[in-house]
Amino acid sequence: MPAREYSRSPAPGAGEKGEREFIRRLAGLVPPSGGVPFGDDMAAIDPGSDLLWTTDVLMDGVDFNSAEHSWRAIGRKALAVNLSDCAAMGARPLAALAMLVLPAGLARDEALALMSGAAALGEQFACPIRGGDTNSWVHPAVVGFAVIGRPDAGATPIRRDGAAPGDTIFVSGPVGGSLLGRHMTFEPRVELGLELSRSLRPSAMIDISDGLSLDLARILEASGCGAALDVPALERVIHDDARRRSGQTGRTPLDHALGDGEDFELIVCAPAAREAQALALGLQPIGRIVETPGMRLRQADGALEELAPSGWEHAV
Amino acid sequence: MPAREYSRSPAPGAGEKGEREFIRRLAGLVPPSGGVPFGDDMAAIDPGSDLLWTTDVLMDGVDFNSAEHSWRAIGRKALAVNLSDCAAMGARPLAALAMLVLPAGLARDEALALMSGAAALGEQFACPIRGGDTNSWVHPAVVGFAVIGRPDAGATPIRRDGAAPGDTIFVSGPVGGSLLGRHMTFEPRVELGLELSRSLRPSAMIDISDGLSLDLARILEASGCGAALDVPALERVIHDDARRRSGQTGRTPLDHALGDGEDFELIVCAPAAREAQALALGLQPIGRIVETPGMRLRQADGALEELAPSGWEHAV
Repeated sequence: MPAREYSRSPAPGAGEKGEREFIRRLAGLVPPSGGVPFGDDMAAIDPGSDLLWTTDVLMDGVDFNSAEHSWRAIGRKALAVNLSDCAAMGARPLAALAMLVLPAGLARDEALALMSGAAALGEQFACPIRGGDTNSWVHPAVVGFAVIGRPDAGATPIRRDGAAPGDTIFVSGPVGGSLLGRHMTFEPRVELGLELSRSLRPSAMIDISDGLSLDLARILEASGCGAALDVPALERVIHDDARRRSGQTGRTPLDHALGDGEDFELIVCAPAAREAQALALGLQPIGRIVETPGMRLRQADGALEELAPSGWEHAV
Repeated sequence: MPAREYSRSPAPGAGEKGEREFIRRLAGLVPPSGGVPFGDDMAAIDPGSDLLWTTDVLMDGVDFNSAEHSWRAIGRKALAVNLSDCAAMGARPLAALAMLVLPAGLARDEALALMSGAAALGEQFACPIRGGDTNSWVHPAVVGFAVIGRPDAGATPIRRDGAAPGDTIFVSGPVGGSLLGRHMTFEPRVELGLELSRSLRPSAMIDISDGLSLDLARILEASGCGAALDVPALERVIHDDARRRSGQTGRTPLDHALGDGEDFELIVCAPAAREAQALALGLQPIGRIVETPGMRLRQADGALEELAPSGWEHAV
């Protein structure tokens, strides 16, 4: 999962191999599950079941700031990031469990506001909170949920390892600058994920939690291919918030669109022959899957430059 | 879940209503799930499924001490407490997800040791770790797992709300003083829980995470009845560690047996007519369920005294 600039790693590139390498070593501890490879947005429960599950944990001072955000909004976000994982797999959420580690001085009403914010979002997505674990300590809050879901009848999970050269790469909406507020209020693309699973059958899909270029790199690594991104097309999916952030940071709007996290839009890969269908579903093309590993940006004049993944990676 | 004396609340009685009241108010946010009431050891996933799930989260300085315990032992315990919830429901664990919030300076090998400790226990109980979420921050570690399980074919979950006057109350082993080391190394009673579900069909069951008297009080509250505990019988289930702790604290061994947490033995209620069968399974009787709410201790001479629940409750 995500994390924004509250305590962002000073050198995003430094930890770049961090989480992936750690996950690769973890995968060695994990028996094959059938269905979904280790490290996708959701995990298989059991080879004999079509149920999937996921967990995402948010930390005060990293993923939210309790001095700035209401506990209701924090609870909502903590569930929403998990629902976004469901969206990315084309899974319908079924139920959630809460995992709360709260600061000892927190008022009971604040803790209930946190749960109410999550419960209201759960109700909206027919994903009731079924239980959980509540704890307190003298450090900042950690707020997590686990969510179970499943693909609709007849469908299978959309994994991140199925992209193939020739596929078009789409995003489901404008990206960048979510730190200005959208990272707390986004609507997980659950219905779109289910609709895509039903009608477009993407070859690969992921949600943008850590950054467009970093999350796309995860598709590419899992699928064993590369990407050529089209700059004029990318310009059309830069969120206004990315332009506003650019004014604050001096980095380009495109840089924010490629490297900011927590947009929670979907990156979708599908054969070019289905591009018209994808456009009709509101997806916006940004480039193409190619055989050569790595990512390249293609400028309007055809010039190519290498693009290193940027975004948030956890430090371990 | 548990937590020991590393940062134990100064007045155990003070927070006594805390977690129960909070859970009662939370329950108002949660739609009925059929199957298992909110607040039991595991939660139902969906009315149409026999799967159950649980989550327990451990905090550095509260539930373990990373200056004292190895990360491998910490990872093992973090999964074990969840497997103990499975035991308490008579559920067979199926799969786990990890939720890690690790201190930023932790070496990668330590993080892997943590996961290795959990994975080895998971392998022992056929409960593979299927994925999870790894994060880091500048505060102490939070280590959680979510576990899914199900009763064996033909069985239903053993809830905590089915105890009835006349039932005998048993424990599955000696209790008290786990802080001397057993709280890190206990074996979750998964096989016993399944065996009891199969053959004894307990009317109520719970694992001792927070203290014999406190966890028994949870059965009594859920079941709407009381308990009379027999002191000579209790004397027979006092762990040697409770006597050793008594030497350190000046509290009686019985006090430690009643109030210490993290024994992770099972409290089992079953009709008195099945007592011989329960004894054959290794359970040890400690008293009887009665109609009058509350708990009483019956001394060898027949004198009765009120017993207030003691043990660990989370402060929120």
